[in-house]
Amino acid sequence: MRVGILGGGQLGLMLAESIQHLGHQALVYERDADSPCHQRLASVTTGTLEDTPRLQSFLQQVDVVTFDSENIPAAPLEPFAAKLFPSLQVLQTCQDRLAEKRFLSANGFSPVDFAWVDEGAPVLATAEKLGFPCVAKTIRGGYDGKGQTRLNGYEDAVRYDRKRQTLDSAPALVLESFVELLAEVSCVVARDASGAIWPFPVFENIHRNHILDFTLVPARLEQNHQTQALTMAGDIAQALQVVGLLTVEFFLAKSADRTPKLLVNELAPRTHNSGHVTRAACQLSQFDALARILTGTPMCRPTLRTGGYCMGQLLGDLWPSVAGALEATPLVQSSQLSELYLYGKTEARPGRKMGHFIVEAGCGDDALNVAQQLRNTVPSPK
Amino acid sequence: MRVGILGGGQLGLMLAESIQHLGHQALVYERDADSPCHQRLASVTTGTLEDTPRLQSFLQQVDVVTFDSENIPAAPLEPFAAKLFPSLQVLQTCQDRLAEKRFLSANGFSPVDFAWVDEGAPVLATAEKLGFPCVAKTIRGGYDGKGQTRLNGYEDAVRYDRKRQTLDSAPALVLESFVELLAEVSCVVARDASGAIWPFPVFENIHRNHILDFTLVPARLEQNHQTQALTMAGDIAQALQVVGLLTVEFFLAKSADRTPKLLVNELAPRTHNSGHVTRAACQLSQFDALARILTGTPMCRPTLRTGGYCMGQLLGDLWPSVAGALEATPLVQSSQLSELYLYGKTEARPGRKMGHFIVEAGCGDDALNVAQQLRNTVPSPK
Repeated sequence: MRVGILGGGQLGLMLAESIQHLGHQALVYERDADSPCHQRLASVTTGTLEDTPRLQSFLQQVDVVTFDSENIPAAPLEPFAAKLFPSLQVLQTCQDRLAEKRFLSANGFSPVDFAWVDEGAPVLATAEKLGFPCVAKTIRGGYDGKGQTRLNGYEDAVRYDRKRQTLDSAPALVLESFVELLAEVSCVVARDASGAIWPFPVFENIHRNHILDFTLVPARLEQNHQTQALTMAGDIAQALQVVGLLTVEFFLAKSADRTPKLLVNELAPRTHNSGHVTRAACQLSQFDALARILTGTPMCRPTLRTGGYCMGQLLGDLWPSVAGALEATPLVQSSQLSELYLYGKTEARPGRKMGHFIVEAGCGDDALNVAQQLRNTVPSPK
Repeated sequence: MRVGILGGGQLGLMLAESIQHLGHQALVYERDADSPCHQRLASVTTGTLEDTPRLQSFLQQVDVVTFDSENIPAAPLEPFAAKLFPSLQVLQTCQDRLAEKRFLSANGFSPVDFAWVDEGAPVLATAEKLGFPCVAKTIRGGYDGKGQTRLNGYEDAVRYDRKRQTLDSAPALVLESFVELLAEVSCVVARDASGAIWPFPVFENIHRNHILDFTLVPARLEQNHQTQALTMAGDIAQALQVVGLLTVEFFLAKSADRTPKLLVNELAPRTHNSGHVTRAACQLSQFDALARILTGTPMCRPTLRTGGYCMGQLLGDLWPSVAGALEATPLVQSSQLSELYLYGKTEARPGRKMGHFIVEAGCGDDALNVAQQLRNTVPSPK
């Protein structure tokens, strides 16, 4: 089979490898001629998603196609909707923060309390009604904290509106109640064409500056919350009729009655950076799972290996040290290192994901400690 | 760094992936334009090893170079000897069965008893002196039992000599005493540029028709034999001054005094098909280890994960079923499956290695049983 992937970053690259390992062909479509996939894989087409003739000629060549980001235009995919997994409808729901929250709300999946502000309209009245503090988020295109602003009170909202007035077209927004986090977790579930759900274990995520920093399994979370998260993730995948992967990001939040409460933060109908940990922690990775579904290969149950695992990101901030002196650090020599995977990105920008590593230890907590200690051995660039 | 690999089969492909994961470039040189590497990787040059200008232009482009088979001509590599890992001298010793045995013998590494027969000379006298049964093997180019003939007694030798007389140039041979096998094991050791030895665990190999069929770890072998094998493999790598990987294949043989005896069968200065099992069984695979040495990345100790692991080959004999109906078999759906890796070879010949799978279980024996049962679920082609 010829499997198309829209996007040639690290998620596309690792998926392509899994597709190849099953004996099938992976064909990538990517704008940046210097992408990880361009540098490493045989079949990469350079083109933008806006270049409809080029994109459509690519889509004609493949049997099925998926994407490594939900922030892509849906219209040019419409003639090829039958080849797209997950479906165009799933893509459209998950690329629109408001549509996603309305879907969650309508189906009883407890998103964070939210409201919305139309294009060009001021936020103040809506924010006051929702309550401060709250977070204003663009409806499309945000990731890693981009397009988000925290509004602590009346004055922040007034200032924010003043800025909105200066814009030619102030974008529509979602306002979310600010929640006090006890933990952030994510669940990746695979759903195959028969409708069967194959959950991965719950991942606990630690962010820094809104960017995923560490993911550990088993998550340090009470069993009832783990069960609740897995059940909800499976139910959401079912309600959306996903064929492929769905990643559900949750907040474990403090609530008014002091009982921790699990709230859905957002959905990603694809592999997820938190899921890298499955490459070592499970006998089947998130990439293997999606590759199976795309190629019609029957799934097998992803099981968590014994012990604990922690994935640490290597970001562009650290890159001058990583690229120049990683060899001299204990990170690379640790016998607890399960995987060191650098993505081959040529330009290192602060916050850009350049690679990851995974450590194994006796439990999730130990794995996190080891991962943090090891990453601290990489010197901060001057 | 730009790392060259001579050979684009499955060993070259998996090595290239490991080099890429460390953030370096893998450049492959391979004759067959339809090879696994051609189909999957970005940088593959099509050319024969006999096409010296083309080969040398490839060698000029890379910083270091290795090979996925020792059966390659050494002469065109000479001007680039400084880039070659393991060295030209290691390659030349291991590609000549007689030179290899003389080296082993001279250094006290107990090869199987052997003698040699010059080009064009008859085997009878030498075979009688060595004793029957014995095995005649070509000095160059044999693998998977190719170029081997068992001589059970006087009549076999006479018949063999009669055939040799009809040849224009009957090749030089090594004769080996036939040994009764209790087990076949292999050790892969990495030796880095500083001379440090990094052994992988001992693998137990099960062959069928002289072709590797299953590899399991931990090997079902007494601890003293395991230690002896690992020590000897390290000592051989040291004596040869290997910088890279060395695979040592051993026979555990019945001896005259009924004490099992460990004998060296042969050497391969490269990754080995038995080493695939390290992809799941160890936190660092044989490919990762060689990639580290080639790129000057410090090594970390390869450790065996808890439990047992078994790698099973998927050969061309089975291919019509694998390619057509693998999806319908329990093999692909087993939750004990750690890896399923198909090499993307387009032509399936009997005995050709088309892919492998690895299962995890409580111990090596269980893993072997599960692997055998699972592979038996793949129907034999009509």
